[in-house]
Amino acid sequence: MGTSREAVIDLLGLIGCGLLFAFETLSRDSALANDMAAKRSLGGLAVAQFESFERVEDRLEAMGADPEKAIGAYVPTLTEFHRKTAPRDLLEGLIKAYVGGGISSDFGLEISQFVDPESQAFIQDVLGDQGQADFVVPAIQQALSEDPGAAGRLALWGRRLMGEALAQAQRVAADRPDLARLVFGGPEESGAGFTEFAQMLARMTQRHSERMQAVGLAP
Amino acid sequence: MGTSREAVIDLLGLIGCGLLFAFETLSRDSALANDMAAKRSLGGLAVAQFESFERVEDRLEAMGADPEKAIGAYVPTLTEFHRKTAPRDLLEGLIKAYVGGGISSDFGLEISQFVDPESQAFIQDVLGDQGQADFVVPAIQQALSEDPGAAGRLALWGRRLMGEALAQAQRVAADRPDLARLVFGGPEESGAGFTEFAQMLARMTQRHSERMQAVGLAP
Repeated sequence: MGTSREAVIDLLGLIGCGLLFAFETLSRDSALANDMAAKRSLGGLAVAQFESFERVEDRLEAMGADPEKAIGAYVPTLTEFHRKTAPRDLLEGLIKAYVGGGISSDFGLEISQFVDPESQAFIQDVLGDQGQADFVVPAIQQALSEDPGAAGRLALWGRRLMGEALAQAQRVAADRPDLARLVFGGPEESGAGFTEFAQMLARMTQRHSERMQAVGLAP
Repeated sequence: MGTSREAVIDLLGLIGCGLLFAFETLSRDSALANDMAAKRSLGGLAVAQFESFERVEDRLEAMGADPEKAIGAYVPTLTEFHRKTAPRDLLEGLIKAYVGGGISSDFGLEISQFVDPESQAFIQDVLGDQGQADFVVPAIQQALSEDPGAAGRLALWGRRLMGEALAQAQRVAADRPDLARLVFGGPEESGAGFTEFAQMLARMTQRHSERMQAVGLAP
């Protein structure tokens, strides 16, 4: 197994930071919601993300890594992503939670196949079904049925989210060589290799399209 | 005991809604923070508020009340309060969490003396020390030591928060007669009575001043 310990720490740091920002996004959606039922559902989802973030912290600590350093390394990148994709209303916020959560789960699960079996099992568990879609998909569908004219704007919004995620991913790849080697492969490393990387990107784009279509939006 | 069951449900609804909005406020502060340590502390505090909110829901259910209705009744009022007091930066957000949390805990604990002993014990427990001050007070003190010129603006901010809280409290009193009778007293009810109410307000104002002074701001 050529995976370096540093690459696993980098990957767990990214996943942990993603969960922390997912907590913030879903809490913000709770604040944008006007009714009690939506607030409690979104708040509950947010809390679940924070608990998963804490599990990643514990895992990093058990590996002898510094969670604050490993996770904190991604705070600037994810802050930039969230600054550029601040939702203007609840519906944009719901789509962001749904699309963004989907993309980051897909990414973590794809990369987890290149790490040691124990880390892989942990990542699959922590990124497994988080129940977001159960609340968010019907909420988006209902909002769109009440305001069908919003579909065009929201389809663009979904594409922008995917575009910004890819832009930030490139930045991460440039900043974190261990993680990049894990994703792109390298002479002495396991990892995806460019062909596999292209296939992975195709699968992630495909799943993003499926998610958009599931809520009635053009991918 | 002249306290009506409806008044207790009204009070628990208000406390539960306050906790839900405290969760949203602290999550927002997490999103405004730039470093990992502050984010995790604020996120942890936010999650604790949400868990307390869930305990209030359970309590209302055990009383045979509808939590969504009881807590949801205050969503418009608290939304209005939070709309009028949206923090412009992390420091304003921290002061809001600290001052707002203090005022609402004080209020709930003051009123709890007029309800049945079991409800009183529950309220004291759920509003007891939530550890907010442990993180928030040093964070405010440090930020002020780095930017002493902000003290004047933030002292005004604290006064505005107290003023808006009182304005919304008047609105609640007008909308919820059972709760208002509990606070102000009435011919056939237990409750504070006007003299006691004035004393309660004086105590709450005093504690607000003490909190402001504790972080180095003019009350």
